[in-house]
Amino acid sequence: MSKQNQEGITVKKDENFSEWYQELMIKAKLACYTKVSGCIVFMPKSYAIWEKFVFETDKLFKKSGIQNVGFPMFIPESLLSKEEEHVKGFVPEVAWVTEAGNKKLSERLAVRPTSEAIIYDTLPNWIRSYNDLPLRLNLWNNVVRWEFKNPVPFFRTREFLWNEGHSAFASEKDARAEADDILGMYDKVCSEFMALPSVRGFKTDKEKFAGAVYSEKLHYMLPSGRVIEGPCFHYDGQNFAKAYDIKFINNKGEEDYVYQNTWAVSTRMLGTMFTIHSDDKGLVIPPKLANEKIVIVPILFDETKSKVLKKVEEIKKSLKIFNPILDVREDVSPGRKFNEWELKGIPLRIELGPKDLEKKSVVVVKRNTGEKISIKIASLKKEISKLLKTIQKELYDNANKLLKNSMKSSKDIKETIKFVKDKKMVSVPMCKGEKCEEGLKDKMPGLKTLFIDSEKKISGKEKCLVCSGKAEYFVYVGRTY
Amino acid sequence: MSKQNQEGITVKKDENFSEWYQELMIKAKLACYTKVSGCIVFMPKSYAIWEKFVFETDKLFKKSGIQNVGFPMFIPESLLSKEEEHVKGFVPEVAWVTEAGNKKLSERLAVRPTSEAIIYDTLPNWIRSYNDLPLRLNLWNNVVRWEFKNPVPFFRTREFLWNEGHSAFASEKDARAEADDILGMYDKVCSEFMALPSVRGFKTDKEKFAGAVYSEKLHYMLPSGRVIEGPCFHYDGQNFAKAYDIKFINNKGEEDYVYQNTWAVSTRMLGTMFTIHSDDKGLVIPPKLANEKIVIVPILFDETKSKVLKKVEEIKKSLKIFNPILDVREDVSPGRKFNEWELKGIPLRIELGPKDLEKKSVVVVKRNTGEKISIKIASLKKEISKLLKTIQKELYDNANKLLKNSMKSSKDIKETIKFVKDKKMVSVPMCKGEKCEEGLKDKMPGLKTLFIDSEKKISGKEKCLVCSGKAEYFVYVGRTY
Repeated sequence: MSKQNQEGITVKKDENFSEWYQELMIKAKLACYTKVSGCIVFMPKSYAIWEKFVFETDKLFKKSGIQNVGFPMFIPESLLSKEEEHVKGFVPEVAWVTEAGNKKLSERLAVRPTSEAIIYDTLPNWIRSYNDLPLRLNLWNNVVRWEFKNPVPFFRTREFLWNEGHSAFASEKDARAEADDILGMYDKVCSEFMALPSVRGFKTDKEKFAGAVYSEKLHYMLPSGRVIEGPCFHYDGQNFAKAYDIKFINNKGEEDYVYQNTWAVSTRMLGTMFTIHSDDKGLVIPPKLANEKIVIVPILFDETKSKVLKKVEEIKKSLKIFNPILDVREDVSPGRKFNEWELKGIPLRIELGPKDLEKKSVVVVKRNTGEKISIKIASLKKEISKLLKTIQKELYDNANKLLKNSMKSSKDIKETIKFVKDKKMVSVPMCKGEKCEEGLKDKMPGLKTLFIDSEKKISGKEKCLVCSGKAEYFVYVGRTY
Repeated sequence: MSKQNQEGITVKKDENFSEWYQELMIKAKLACYTKVSGCIVFMPKSYAIWEKFVFETDKLFKKSGIQNVGFPMFIPESLLSKEEEHVKGFVPEVAWVTEAGNKKLSERLAVRPTSEAIIYDTLPNWIRSYNDLPLRLNLWNNVVRWEFKNPVPFFRTREFLWNEGHSAFASEKDARAEADDILGMYDKVCSEFMALPSVRGFKTDKEKFAGAVYSEKLHYMLPSGRVIEGPCFHYDGQNFAKAYDIKFINNKGEEDYVYQNTWAVSTRMLGTMFTIHSDDKGLVIPPKLANEKIVIVPILFDETKSKVLKKVEEIKKSLKIFNPILDVREDVSPGRKFNEWELKGIPLRIELGPKDLEKKSVVVVKRNTGEKISIKIASLKKEISKLLKTIQKELYDNANKLLKNSMKSSKDIKETIKFVKDKKMVSVPMCKGEKCEEGLKDKMPGLKTLFIDSEKKISGKEKCLVCSGKAEYFVYVGRTY
């Protein structure tokens, strides 16, 4: 195997998805491991993308009246235990601080897996009457959930970054109405910046958040045929308010418990974006999230070198708003440079050789399609701008095609399994019995409900896919990541 | 005591600084406590200021070529122990995770008190030759140091927010040259946005960072007469590189260890800023960091109410860039509103009553001085803009006066103690003996060296303030926070 090949990705995305992903992480310098098992380093490239994502999302949050806030990352065990379902859901994954300095602590402190317990115990001091509502708080922070499965960068790590939003309202109606605002903002950033279309859907009771009345999420289809949950919204009703005693005086002068929501998006979206857009050559990222949108590679020969170098310097300057990389290394061949920058996901490459110079043009290569276009230098800035928009749209359209093609429906378990094996999700009729939901995995390993199909209504005649009893709703089933 | 007074601060800053500060924190809604002892909540108001500070600092970092990155917050005990002085300095304050899920961990994990150990253990994979240098990485994150003293919001809490910069260079010269860049950026943001002037100075060997060759910091004088350390820069030489085996091939083809720096600024700067500018009425913050720069209070009488309300709505719209608050509450008197917004530190208040309306003017009140100015509505936007700049400058100038007036020099221990009791810091001649540095606290409780006086050179005749032996340098002594 030549050195050049070893630098590139050696596995095909279609043939061995998980090996391909691991190579992409390391070789495109997105993540690496440390001696802390199950945690990763967010390398500068991926961290910069997360920062942009946070910036854009946060801008919408602020515009919507949400306030950022900082809470301690430690939660005393007794506080975490106040809401019964919540604690059951999280305790198996909690990392505990038991010693500090050289002393044993009198009570274990959880490293936050999520901050409901610490925030909600404080809220009674912040809320007195309906005048203090709605209270819409948000945290951008790090949380820890001690997974025992193999770590996968961005998708499954013991520590990850996210936002956690926590809002309190004076009425159920107001609280529920926040779902469209929140999921709308998430979807806007994920589709406009990450070029990722989603399907929005309610979780079944079995799959909802520990402590919530209902959970609604945005779902994405990975090229491996597994469905992944992205941004989520949970309506908690008065469950936490009762556990943590968060009361207020309503506009009739009566005491009531607040109505709460929680909502989140995590660095898992980075993994989702990397897998959906990237290919066998390496990373592909949407231009809007690429820090460096262009690489300029001069083709150098001894006689014309100085002229070509002078011109690429000029081009670099004129394209400054795209933060271009100019690669003038002389000990690396153009071909190897092409491979390297393709691996690293620079959206556009500009090649300039002596012949191009004569024609006063350059060759521009699109990272996502490999398409080569000759463009006059005089109109380069305008054309680059257009091309970046085109790439952004093409990535979205492709992801959308993958998503739409993956959505099937069936009333037959054999056909359903065939679809799922073929990397689809399937809308099927089911009863609401937890036993049937549990029973899916006996029909096919890993098969489970994804979200309720809100487009299809039950006529009354459909039978549950599992028990053949009366079906109560259509629900998408498939495999998850 | 009337209800109005209880809402305001009841203690004078001059008379009981620490009580005053605690009241400021709670009543201006900057921080509050939770059931996790020693940690605080950064309430929306203070968190927003930190976000702005981070944004401005980060902009300069990025311009200077520094890359942000994310590392795990857990550090295995064996890794932390690699650099001997470093571990000695931090272990007494470390919080340890010893259990996760329901399992005991085979090795204790430190919650990062700082990230040298986890970053430097990874760097050998990132650095091969001088082509990979300089490598300038930065993290904005949360760290934990388990203080056993009483917590003071922003100044002393077990968890705090900060940046930690870690850079590696190919030569000592390059590494040392980074100090001016880094401390320059910190000073720019602290002086231009926080309106806080500083004195830059090297720490004595005894006071330097655990593991560093030298430490250089920016120092601020608090109104209590205590000196506080702000942003800091540590030149680590090859100390960590040798402990963590961070080698590279230099441009002569030889193997060498990298030369490293670390640098940081923390949320302690918020406390510094709050105490220096605020007063007996409550919070004062520099306009550049105030989210809401103006509050508009209409003076309402039955006959003229609708006219006045219409006008303040217009004014609010025209001043939108200052993010004004319009306080139209009718169940709260103007006087109480004035007190409330002064407590909360809104830089400018606009009052509009029927008489002002007749004169087509408003009364504008400066939060920092209480000065009242009548301004024509037609030129309001322009004048507000000027006034905000004036306030920003006045805050800086006042802080600078406090700082400059607090810097004394003396060769006599009695006079030195008198100065320090009078809230000053004093440049004194000393030998470099650690015993003499230790001995300062026997002369006066809490007396210690602050930083080396770089302006004054030893003539050879000066005697050490403590042992009367030959003095080797002038060094500032005083009390610290």
